Amino acid sequence: MTDTAILPQVERTSHTPINLQAKLALFSEHWSPKVIAEMNDYQFKLVKLQGDFLWHHHQHTDETFLVLEGHLRIDFRDGVVHLSPGEMYIVPKGVEHKPFAADEVHVLLIEPRGVVNTGTETTALTAPNDIWI
Amino acid sequence: MTDTAILPQVERTSHTPINLQAKLALFSEHWSPKVIAEMNDYQFKLVKLQGDFLWHHHQHTDETFLVLEGHLRIDFRDGVVHLSPGEMYIVPKGVEHKPFAADEVHVLLIEPRGVVNTGTETTALTAPNDIWI
Repeated sequence: MTDTAILPQVERTSHTPINLQAKLALFSEHWSPKVIAEMNDYQFKLVKLQGDFLWHHHQHTDETFLVLEGHLRIDFRDGVVHLSPGEMYIVPKGVEHKPFAADEVHVLLIEPRGVVNTGTETTALTAPNDIWI
Repeated sequence: MTDTAILPQVERTSHTPINLQAKLALFSEHWSPKVIAEMNDYQFKLVKLQGDFLWHHHQHTDETFLVLEGHLRIDFRDGVVHLSPGEMYIVPKGVEHKPFAADEVHVLLIEPRGVVNTGTETTALTAPNDIWI
């Protein structure tokens, strides 16, 4: 008789949570979102930002920024929002915006699968999609 | 001549970020999600949980749990996941689950507008939807 004989009849799987800090430790490059999870046809992406991005907009969707570390500024044509850790902002569909971070900032992005980081622009800053970590 | 004469031609609006801790300070009841933002037809909801919830599932959508404070256990019929602050888990569509928190836990829920907290069940724990804070 082995030890397994005293286990309950149905063994329970321990599912693995997604740890944001552990995922952030897996990459260092800037402006290159990494997918960590999908909910229906939406993706959760971690990204590290530093410096100035380009003006762009997303034609078909809102875009959520949740700051995990550092300070993010998002410029709009008519204004600005400043985000600190634990703060979020949803950029409405079609609204031009330009993220800026004086020092490195860690952000959780939430948006539909397939959204291009530079919106309708294609530049050297355009990152490939669906890079999972 | 007043001071306003030296302002730039286009005044820039300072948009307000959504501060999760500030929103959490606005309510204390358990098991009653509060909407803080919408992205397309998805909602971000804060909820405080303590104790044992009921078994339920959501027929038409995945459901995202991101733990902000405390420790959350989600039981499944075949397993369990333990979530600490900074950890998330997406419960797949149709999967029965039962949240449990020994001590109070603060969670950011992300799911489509209209999802009922008790899924297909209606009980005393069923919370009204679209309560914004």
